[in-house]
Amino acid sequence: MTEDAASRPEARAPRGFADRRGRDLVAERRLVQRVSEVYERWGFEPLDTGAFEYADALGKFLPDADRPNEGVFALQDDDDQWMALRYDLTAPLARFAAQGWETLPKPFRRYAFGPVWRNEKPGPGRFREFVQCDADTVGSDRPEADAEIIAMACEGLQAAGLAAGQAVIRVSNRKLFDGLFEAGGVTDPIQKLTALRAIDKFDRLGWEGVSLLLGEGRLDESGDYTKGANVPKAVAATIEAFLASAGDGALSRAETLNRIAQAGGLGATGESALEELAAIDRALTAMRVGEDAVRFDPTIVRGLEYYTGAVFEAELLLETIDEKGRAVRFGSIGGGGRYDDLVARFTGERLPATGFSFGVSRLASALRAAGRGDEDAVRGPVVVIVFSQDDMQHYLDAVSELRNAGIAAELYLGRAGMKAQMKYADRRGAPAAVILGGDEIAAGQVTIKDLDAGRALAAGITDNEAWKAERPGQRVAPRAELVATVRAIVDAARTAS
Amino acid sequence: MTEDAASRPEARAPRGFADRRGRDLVAERRLVQRVSEVYERWGFEPLDTGAFEYADALGKFLPDADRPNEGVFALQDDDDQWMALRYDLTAPLARFAAQGWETLPKPFRRYAFGPVWRNEKPGPGRFREFVQCDADTVGSDRPEADAEIIAMACEGLQAAGLAAGQAVIRVSNRKLFDGLFEAGGVTDPIQKLTALRAIDKFDRLGWEGVSLLLGEGRLDESGDYTKGANVPKAVAATIEAFLASAGDGALSRAETLNRIAQAGGLGATGESALEELAAIDRALTAMRVGEDAVRFDPTIVRGLEYYTGAVFEAELLLETIDEKGRAVRFGSIGGGGRYDDLVARFTGERLPATGFSFGVSRLASALRAAGRGDEDAVRGPVVVIVFSQDDMQHYLDAVSELRNAGIAAELYLGRAGMKAQMKYADRRGAPAAVILGGDEIAAGQVTIKDLDAGRALAAGITDNEAWKAERPGQRVAPRAELVATVRAIVDAARTAS
Repeated sequence: MTEDAASRPEARAPRGFADRRGRDLVAERRLVQRVSEVYERWGFEPLDTGAFEYADALGKFLPDADRPNEGVFALQDDDDQWMALRYDLTAPLARFAAQGWETLPKPFRRYAFGPVWRNEKPGPGRFREFVQCDADTVGSDRPEADAEIIAMACEGLQAAGLAAGQAVIRVSNRKLFDGLFEAGGVTDPIQKLTALRAIDKFDRLGWEGVSLLLGEGRLDESGDYTKGANVPKAVAATIEAFLASAGDGALSRAETLNRIAQAGGLGATGESALEELAAIDRALTAMRVGEDAVRFDPTIVRGLEYYTGAVFEAELLLETIDEKGRAVRFGSIGGGGRYDDLVARFTGERLPATGFSFGVSRLASALRAAGRGDEDAVRGPVVVIVFSQDDMQHYLDAVSELRNAGIAAELYLGRAGMKAQMKYADRRGAPAAVILGGDEIAAGQVTIKDLDAGRALAAGITDNEAWKAERPGQRVAPRAELVATVRAIVDAARTAS
Repeated sequence: MTEDAASRPEARAPRGFADRRGRDLVAERRLVQRVSEVYERWGFEPLDTGAFEYADALGKFLPDADRPNEGVFALQDDDDQWMALRYDLTAPLARFAAQGWETLPKPFRRYAFGPVWRNEKPGPGRFREFVQCDADTVGSDRPEADAEIIAMACEGLQAAGLAAGQAVIRVSNRKLFDGLFEAGGVTDPIQKLTALRAIDKFDRLGWEGVSLLLGEGRLDESGDYTKGANVPKAVAATIEAFLASAGDGALSRAETLNRIAQAGGLGATGESALEELAAIDRALTAMRVGEDAVRFDPTIVRGLEYYTGAVFEAELLLETIDEKGRAVRFGSIGGGGRYDDLVARFTGERLPATGFSFGVSRLASALRAAGRGDEDAVRGPVVVIVFSQDDMQHYLDAVSELRNAGIAAELYLGRAGMKAQMKYADRRGAPAAVILGGDEIAAGQVTIKDLDAGRALAAGITDNEAWKAERPGQRVAPRAELVATVRAIVDAARTAS
């Protein structure tokens, strides 16, 4: 079967697709498991739709050509219909809800997790396949439904491993700017977009820079000139009040709403947005959601077109150290909002919906970088060393006793000698190696190497003599005490980590 | 955003792709979770490769044309390379092992689960996306590695919910027939294939029919003539002995091997296959794997080309009732074997490997059909009924108390009245509904409807007066006893099911 070197395929994963193993994968799965438990306790049922949707259902309009459009992985089925891999979990939910609405409990709460695919240019840390975890309520127009999603997201993030104060969910309402622009006579879509982009630069440029971009335009230090949005002065004044309220971390949710109301100029649409936010605040407060955990921030502008009301953004506040030793804020790890028109694309009838989504790998790597990863998840199995084929029964008995006691264990199954086997055990992250040589077997004994102690000694982590006496690198025990001895080592390793 | 009816997309899942919800999905996830725990205890680490592989890595040879070949979902990346969605979990493992072999512990044990995609004609119960769960050891040529995979598969199937005696793993070795054909002078590939197909019909035709198909040919009852394989008499005699040993359920593994050895005519290749099977038997016996759980059956012929030695097939023995009330055997739910050449496709160097794979949905539906499903998984949340916006705080407190006690609970968030809310709770599979009307709140009480009791009464399942007294459909409790009262109902429902 071996082919010529020239005709052999190269072993490589496609660009932008990652292989994930052991430690990272186990941590991600536990994270999803813990969040799922929260979501189920809140009455959200699991849903799994297929990887493909018809392209028209995804809201992409494919040209009738060989090359499907950018952004999605699309192909033509044998009945000539275009299918595409889902790029998020919201579009498939909208299709599912429209398809089966008659038979679903109303409102319908569901959570989902799984890979999504984006046909974008891959790069370092930029993948074309990643796991999202979503929760949505379809069929409720109540602000309590938004509040529930927000409160549940908070509890989910805590279950994932974030301590209080390590994350904040910022909430706003799309209709605030809609109303503001409407009342201020800003109707040109390009002008609106330019204004929103200016607001988005507040962090970097401050009010001075933003006010130029809302006005005539701004000349930056490199000499580049950016044409401004040229919005009316009254509109700019309201935006300034928005930014001030967002920047003032001491304001409660109710106080933020007061500030916005005082700024005025919101028009009927903006006022109704304020009322919705006030109702969300009442529900959040009734659910005892702290002012630190969920804040109102009128500058939150979620990119997706389809939001129609409340919008949410989850931001990590914990600082982590990057590979160059610099403190880094992780920033946004998820978001969501109300999208009352998405199901109507199929049915023509408005069906209110609201939801929250976060990136699983992104949250997991933030937790890992912040030292809040699930270290217990990384231990390899105990390795039983193999010397002679004749003693296989002894090795198999040892490995099976350990497993029956709930300790992960394996037999070395290569053909290498003792030294290579110890190296293998080390590479596996094994807490211990079990040695049953001829002498041990004859004496009814077993030698157990404490590999963690060995690693600690080798790394010079401890030279404390008492510690060495308590955790020698190697101990000989009666064969009957195999499980108890190994368990003591595994437990010590767990406590120490 | 609402478009004209004519321009609206139809809400439908692509052909051959299923939406899966609640009960079935939870049962499948628990199954995978339990099997994963077993595999990790045996020292297999999790691996997740991407959905796509380069087409050449999958071993498919795509024409340089618009239409990729049958069987896989393929598309051309923007650098013109063909990529295809994985059709199993073995090909990606071979690619991964070849790519990173230098850095992996050797032997390398991994398990994996996830969707695989087949671009085949969909039909009832025939999907183009389904979940597989695999475990493989790469880099060990020891028969103990095969035995370990087989023994672990047995333990995994038990953890999934199969009782002893409900499944059997049948084991054979590809090289038995290779040796037999070689020694008997059967060299024509078509002749070999015809002979193997004849053997595969033993269940239906018995030895009489098979012997005709191994000889000149066979005229069936409808008058159709099937040309035979025309193998030499000695070869046919050995095959007869194979079939007799396979059909005799009383034979131990060692006795089956004896029968095969006595039949003779296996040649050097066949003899080495027998030796491998004997070593697998010794290891299985050393691991206390029962003769009923794993049998040798020389007629096992796995379809896949790439097997080079031992082959396994897991068969469900439990009988289930189909929708027409007939007893049905589920048959094969998985299999595997040794494939020592698959990694060599990339590297040119032989790397021994062995593994086992099963279909998750298929096993889950077998368990469900056999009444061994995970009924506990299907309960909906407790539903708190909503009457007046003014009493929202009371409802939210109740729902949050229940959740904090670990009981799944939700607030009704639609806009419908009491009757529709009770219907909603019933549709959700709620064990109980919590009623906090104005009167209850004023009196410091809560009314709790036991919906299971209500369903049982409605269905006439019980008219026992004592039972009714013990589990009335509805009870009024002091508000402080909300959690205790609901818990009693949830626990009673769990015990009864």
